[in-house]
Amino acid sequence: MKDKIKYGMVGGGPGAFIGEVHRKAAALDGHLELVAGSFSSSAEKSKQMGEELGLDPRRVYSSFEEMAKKEAALPEDERIDMVSVVTPNHLHFPICKAFIEQGIHVVCDKPMTNTIEEAEELCRLVEKHEVLFALTHNYTGYPMVKEARHLVQSGKLGSLRKVVVEYPQGWLAEPVEEQGNKQAEWRTDPQKAGVSAAIADIGTHAENLVEYITGLQIEKLFADTTSFVEGRALEDDANMLVHYEGGVRGILYASQVSVGEENPLNIRVYGTEASLEWNQESPNYLRVKYPDKPEEIHKRGNLYLSDAAGFNTRIPPGHPEGFLEAFANIYKNVALTLQAKKNCKEPDKLATDFPTVQDGLTGVKFIHKAIESGKENHWVEMD
Amino acid sequence: MKDKIKYGMVGGGPGAFIGEVHRKAAALDGHLELVAGSFSSSAEKSKQMGEELGLDPRRVYSSFEEMAKKEAALPEDERIDMVSVVTPNHLHFPICKAFIEQGIHVVCDKPMTNTIEEAEELCRLVEKHEVLFALTHNYTGYPMVKEARHLVQSGKLGSLRKVVVEYPQGWLAEPVEEQGNKQAEWRTDPQKAGVSAAIADIGTHAENLVEYITGLQIEKLFADTTSFVEGRALEDDANMLVHYEGGVRGILYASQVSVGEENPLNIRVYGTEASLEWNQESPNYLRVKYPDKPEEIHKRGNLYLSDAAGFNTRIPPGHPEGFLEAFANIYKNVALTLQAKKNCKEPDKLATDFPTVQDGLTGVKFIHKAIESGKENHWVEMD
Amino acid sequence: MKDKIKYGMVGGGPGAFIGEVHRKAAALDGHLELVAGSFSSSAEKSKQMGEELGLDPRRVYSSFEEMAKKEAALPEDERIDMVSVVTPNHLHFPICKAFIEQGIHVVCDKPMTNTIEEAEELCRLVEKHEVLFALTHNYTGYPMVKEARHLVQSGKLGSLRKVVVEYPQGWLAEPVEEQGNKQAEWRTDPQKAGVSAAIADIGTHAENLVEYITGLQIEKLFADTTSFVEGRALEDDANMLVHYEGGVRGILYASQVSVGEENPLNIRVYGTEASLEWNQESPNYLRVKYPDKPEEIHKRGNLYLSDAAGFNTRIPPGHPEGFLEAFANIYKNVALTLQAKKNCKEPDKLATDFPTVQDGLTGVKFIHKAIESGKENHWVEMD
Amino acid sequence: MKDKIKYGMVGGGPGAFIGEVHRKAAALDGHLELVAGSFSSSAEKSKQMGEELGLDPRRVYSSFEEMAKKEAALPEDERIDMVSVVTPNHLHFPICKAFIEQGIHVVCDKPMTNTIEEAEELCRLVEKHEVLFALTHNYTGYPMVKEARHLVQSGKLGSLRKVVVEYPQGWLAEPVEEQGNKQAEWRTDPQKAGVSAAIADIGTHAENLVEYITGLQIEKLFADTTSFVEGRALEDDANMLVHYEGGVRGILYASQVSVGEENPLNIRVYGTEASLEWNQESPNYLRVKYPDKPEEIHKRGNLYLSDAAGFNTRIPPGHPEGFLEAFANIYKNVALTLQAKKNCKEPDKLATDFPTVQDGLTGVKFIHKAIESGKENHWVEMD
Repeated sequence: MKDKIKYGMVGGGPGAFIGEVHRKAAALDGHLELVAGSFSSSAEKSKQMGEELGLDPRRVYSSFEEMAKKEAALPEDERIDMVSVVTPNHLHFPICKAFIEQGIHVVCDKPMTNTIEEAEELCRLVEKHEVLFALTHNYTGYPMVKEARHLVQSGKLGSLRKVVVEYPQGWLAEPVEEQGNKQAEWRTDPQKAGVSAAIADIGTHAENLVEYITGLQIEKLFADTTSFVEGRALEDDANMLVHYEGGVRGILYASQVSVGEENPLNIRVYGTEASLEWNQESPNYLRVKYPDKPEEIHKRGNLYLSDAAGFNTRIPPGHPEGFLEAFANIYKNVALTLQAKKNCKEPDKLATDFPTVQDGLTGVKFIHKAIESGKENHWVEMD
Repeated sequence: MKDKIKYGMVGGGPGAFIGEVHRKAAALDGHLELVAGSFSSSAEKSKQMGEELGLDPRRVYSSFEEMAKKEAALPEDERIDMVSVVTPNHLHFPICKAFIEQGIHVVCDKPMTNTIEEAEELCRLVEKHEVLFALTHNYTGYPMVKEARHLVQSGKLGSLRKVVVEYPQGWLAEPVEEQGNKQAEWRTDPQKAGVSAAIADIGTHAENLVEYITGLQIEKLFADTTSFVEGRALEDDANMLVHYEGGVRGILYASQVSVGEENPLNIRVYGTEASLEWNQESPNYLRVKYPDKPEEIHKRGNLYLSDAAGFNTRIPPGHPEGFLEAFANIYKNVALTLQAKKNCKEPDKLATDFPTVQDGLTGVKFIHKAIESGKENHWVEMD
Repeated sequence: MKDKIKYGMVGGGPGAFIGEVHRKAAALDGHLELVAGSFSSSAEKSKQMGEELGLDPRRVYSSFEEMAKKEAALPEDERIDMVSVVTPNHLHFPICKAFIEQGIHVVCDKPMTNTIEEAEELCRLVEKHEVLFALTHNYTGYPMVKEARHLVQSGKLGSLRKVVVEYPQGWLAEPVEEQGNKQAEWRTDPQKAGVSAAIADIGTHAENLVEYITGLQIEKLFADTTSFVEGRALEDDANMLVHYEGGVRGILYASQVSVGEENPLNIRVYGTEASLEWNQESPNYLRVKYPDKPEEIHKRGNLYLSDAAGFNTRIPPGHPEGFLEAFANIYKNVALTLQAKKNCKEPDKLATDFPTVQDGLTGVKFIHKAIESGKENHWVEMD
Repeated sequence: MKDKIKYGMVGGGPGAFIGEVHRKAAALDGHLELVAGSFSSSAEKSKQMGEELGLDPRRVYSSFEEMAKKEAALPEDERIDMVSVVTPNHLHFPICKAFIEQGIHVVCDKPMTNTIEEAEELCRLVEKHEVLFALTHNYTGYPMVKEARHLVQSGKLGSLRKVVVEYPQGWLAEPVEEQGNKQAEWRTDPQKAGVSAAIADIGTHAENLVEYITGLQIEKLFADTTSFVEGRALEDDANMLVHYEGGVRGILYASQVSVGEENPLNIRVYGTEASLEWNQESPNYLRVKYPDKPEEIHKRGNLYLSDAAGFNTRIPPGHPEGFLEAFANIYKNVALTLQAKKNCKEPDKLATDFPTVQDGLTGVKFIHKAIESGKENHWVEMD
């Protein structure tokens, strides 16, 4: 705690959902302390949020530019080590850039940027300024997702053949963006969300989950994208055929008009020897199936699991951990890595396991290629 | 029972799996009586099977041609009313043709034939000879599938938008056709199975299930087909994007290399008002989800279900019915319809609900179009 | 089939539920043929049922006494080998007695008799007349129940410590016996049901399931019995603490006022090394849990299961078998045993696995001891 | 945050499990700040823990007596508002007493004390010193448990008839207390745990859960208690028949030798109109069953739920919340209530929903009565 990482936040003003999630996730383990923020494009709202959070008013800023500059000018033991970027998509790039250029580490929401060029630029900046950059593909923070990755890496599944990943939601089945739903407004607005809605918002999580667990890169994809809700400019449903490297085949789909679905992000990976299945709504369990013996349910918190699963676990088996704990694993691992860095120590290898700026670039490319395939109606190569 | 329907069987010799299923399904409700058969292309094996089944040896034939002719020549109250065709795919056509031309009703395994032309010919023959023809798309025999159809028809789901249907199996993940597995041998042999393995064997069930529940016809499809097992001539995995009439989008996949999967044929149908989900491995339950109220689990045998579900139910709620009962519903309904016919009565409308020769034609077309799309790598229109 | 077992039925007239279940179960595998019956205490109804079933009118009797006598007088290759007794409880004893004394084998519903004395008398008669007597504790017919028994016998669970078995139903939560429900009428009427309703109807199934799987006898029990529905003479809810031999402790409960429950008969057996759980509403799966490795789901139809499970399985994994198939296993095994007997062969040992007259006696004692404990409010020893 | 509640901790030294849980739960929502502690009976370990947590060394104490006295002597805006008591059971009483007498609010682990007299004394002290006292019966912090309570209170279930609650665990199936397991050591040691192990540790959770959801008091109980592990002084398994007020019947069991079980605390409540079921391992779902319509799954985070469920929810539907979030609800509600108190405002009524010193007294009585019944082998009245 003497080493508590100081962080600031851009976005996450009054009523924002994801900003509050970040703050709770950062608070959970006691490794981080929120000390500064530019919480809204409205200076007044930013101030109000700072008060609610009990921050020193001098460190509540009315713009991210001001915040980046002024924080960087503070004494080293006072200024923020890191910034959390939790705004709508189109602002990620300028904000990240501003802080990276001040040598401030970044935790940023996905998708990383709205264009491939911006994503590539961030990769360059991260390298140049030697900052740590973490992207909140939070589903990879679940212990049993880490266990899934471990099982694949350890060869338990044999050679991989097929991956089926799906992320159906129902909350955009009606034109709620026209009915005052703030979350829906910017996510369906090309000015803010970029070229894509469903793929950018949740399809990238599915894509990242596959890559995290299997290590496989997409070679090409064929997307069938639809806007079901009248008047919506961006797709709210996307079904894809995917070819991964090594001849692995897949289906990936993201939908926000699947009425009645909440967040059952589900992945099935089939190898020559075994297969696995994990579902976000029941995240403490990992199913492993074999051709010739009983199905197994691997359960979070047990000693038979891998170090990676154990490292990201807080409480014993049978007492469920959820979304916030998985999200917090990104913050915890970032904090542990930064603490090591500050103390000139090698961080625990397990702590360095969080999504990076490269994952961000992959995700942005994926979005653009999928949208291109949907429009052009043909297979699109990833690179 | 005085009206017991007399039937014969072609195929289903010693060791055959599906023939035994047909016999049990036909026996369950006491409406049918097996009295004749040509159980194998080997006259000896046919004879052996006839003995095991306690049939009159004079009615155990060494060829289906002989059987069709001789049975037709028997007095009307003695000869078979109906024949069950349970051979490998390539024999369905000539056998069905032979019996239809004798005015004998037919229950036939799917896929109906190996070519579209044969399927169309059977449609014509059925019409011409005014016989009843039932195809064993047995999954539509489950009461809760009938309930799903009822919910769609009654408008409970609103306008349909999306259908996700999947049928993963794992039993062909290894080249078991080279290791003496009879079921695998003919299903992977183009001489017997026709142009397709996985799509013909299980993909058609998925396609038929969608059409049965939703009433939707496929407009076009895009298929990604693969033979994962080295040396296998036909596809063992097929992933498809599907456009149904009315702008409905879908995913349909069939796989026989999905290690560890048994028979979790699963369908999800999304409308504007509600969605439903049914899984063959837990067939007595139908899940219905809404945007704004609790998910419901509709359970077989309850009074709140539709007449169609009730008509196809034998035992009360909570005592599970399974695969054989669903299969038997086809036989029971065919038998009730034939009994009515014999007594010059109008059959109960609920009894006439079984897959027809037209469903068979649709299935055969689906197989051919999907294989074509997979080969040509473009969208293929259904008609 | 040449060896088809001929059987008659007492009870199971028009509208009776369980008689129809017996007939379907007996028909499923083609080993038995219904040839005679006394289906109702009303001669007219009996006749009507016989017609519906297509029986020879000369073999449809107006009383069981007449039936036992006349059938026994028929030539050996014509008369019934076996009788199914599917009447209300109070008639089981005289009927069974009448047929046993004619040397006719018996399949009888549970509970076997209404008094311990009658049950003991049946044991003596069965021994004296050397007939085969099977009791339809049908839940032990499920393949995965047989697997559970196998796992216990093979030592997989270590030494047993605890058994929790429960059978909650909701169908008697209202006084439906006063509203024309025939099933409810006799089950809640002390004149027909005997001293007990819930324990006799379903508690005995729970007791038998424990003994079948674990081999354990009850040493003593403490029961808390209640009649929740006003005016009901017999208990509709019973909760028991049970001491089994060898220091094993247990809970057993049966309830027919548990609103919303259908038939989730559930058993959990805990040993020193592992535990198992099985639920009748999901009967194709058996869960096995360990202290130090993943939970396993053993699934019906797989080669890794025991011979006993395999012997009682008809179709491959993933295609569910249900209540009727389990019920049919009793008939199938009885038929195979009788066929062997008739051919002077030793029956397959696996075929001789069905509940016996001794199980019937145990069940009747259990009912009486539980009711006694509930009334006296103290522990009651079983013998 | 300006109103952040300052708290100290007694217990929760290096390696302690539950202390860490309390700290994370308190941190999650940002309403509390840990500023002082006496973390271990070893002054050195306490100091070490204080350092790890980054506390001011002057506020890390070597005894709780010192801590209570010195904290009380600090200026009001500096000293702790509240103390968390997370030691083994036998220390709860003296610690709570010391802080209450200084007017410091208390959050205390359950069971509250080892004797009924101590529990009664705490009730008097809390009243006299007008402090707030919260007991961490954390399972009542789950939103869907609050929803269950709401459904009962709103009459949805009709008149209650039966409650089945069970808490099986497997972690004490071996004598791990002799193998260095600290958690097991004190829980099985009569000097520290008091008269009971399993009932005190988890049975009280089950008892409290019933009372929280149904509002029912136990009238009398009959317990069957066993120590399965050789040499263990206290019971590791307890099965009880329970009579609640108003003629409601129940089963309650707690076991720590149920091999393979983690924490499936499960409750079923049956009324005349409907029933409900909740399981701690799948805490975001509440099942509601009816006699005549489909089963419903009520899901956390939805607008159709009660205010009480909503008030205790952080993230939207489908993103699971777990054990820590439920635990944190006690801390959050205590903090909100204290903040209101400090500001001389009426707290939000929903915030005052946490277990109290009276619940603690009920729990201690329950433990003693259950142990008495198990020893005396007869029904024991609660009061």
